[in-house]
Amino acid sequence: MKAQNLEALFLSELKDVFNAEQQMIKALPKAMRAADSEDLALALEDHLEETQQQIERLKEIFRFMEMPTKGTPCRAMQGLVEECAEVMEEWDKSALRDEGIITKCQRIEHYEIASYESLILFAERLDLDRAVDLLKETLQEEINANKKLAVLAQGRILSMVD
Amino acid sequence: MKAQNLEALFLSELKDVFNAEQQMIKALPKAMRAADSEDLALALEDHLEETQQQIERLKEIFRFMEMPTKGTPCRAMQGLVEECAEVMEEWDKSALRDEGIITKCQRIEHYEIASYESLILFAERLDLDRAVDLLKETLQEEINANKKLAVLAQGRILSMVD
Repeated sequence: MKAQNLEALFLSELKDVFNAEQQMIKALPKAMRAADSEDLALALEDHLEETQQQIERLKEIFRFMEMPTKGTPCRAMQGLVEECAEVMEEWDKSALRDEGIITKCQRIEHYEIASYESLILFAERLDLDRAVDLLKETLQEEINANKKLAVLAQGRILSMVD
Repeated sequence: MKAQNLEALFLSELKDVFNAEQQMIKALPKAMRAADSEDLALALEDHLEETQQQIERLKEIFRFMEMPTKGTPCRAMQGLVEECAEVMEEWDKSALRDEGIITKCQRIEHYEIASYESLILFAERLDLDRAVDLLKETLQEEINANKKLAVLAQGRILSMVD
């Protein structure tokens, strides 16, 4: 019988986001190769490096909670990544497709922002100070990644002749 | 051969969010019934009413663009809704499960916020003034719904004894 307490809920969400980040490690290089513009490819490459750090932070939290470092399939991220793959398949490589990739990536960032905000709320209540610090570092990176993508989307769309 | 221009990208995303909102119409009553607390059930009920209005706004945009009112399967929303259903299945009805439902619903709101932000950006570039107004109304509702859920999550977690 599984414990039904806040720590169990926190761990359940931690496993979810761990799997989500692992999916990102596979998805980001594909989006990088699909990008038409150098600035988008670079932004995605930067975020891939950050994602690797984020996974290390999650591993540290699993370790000090004495739990196996193991995710559970994150269905939401599967759908988000599929949507991004659809854009890459359905449109020709162009500034327009980059715009499509950016909008899908921003949804992924928003998903992660919401996930980390909840995890921080739970970790604070559980007095897991080290986890709070690590999760806040990651949250800030996700917020910045989303902002960077928004700037790229704005710049691209202003230059677009329809 | 499908046109590859900004209007086509806008319409593609419009169909995506139309389907996403239709999925919400089915998912929200289930979450309402699953809610342990009255305030969460009421917040979800309010958002169901808003979602019905949001669908009418999307229909209006399809109409004046002279396009059939038709969505395309939104895989991301399918995953997001599945994740929320998992919480309802795996945990007993309680304040704790409400907290789990809230975190999943906030991810859905974040997804919609990102979608509408992109749609507004595209509609502005396409000079679709009426669409911009309608989409901005909906975006504000999604932002407010997310804030309301965040307040409920905070209140619940402070009262929770782990």
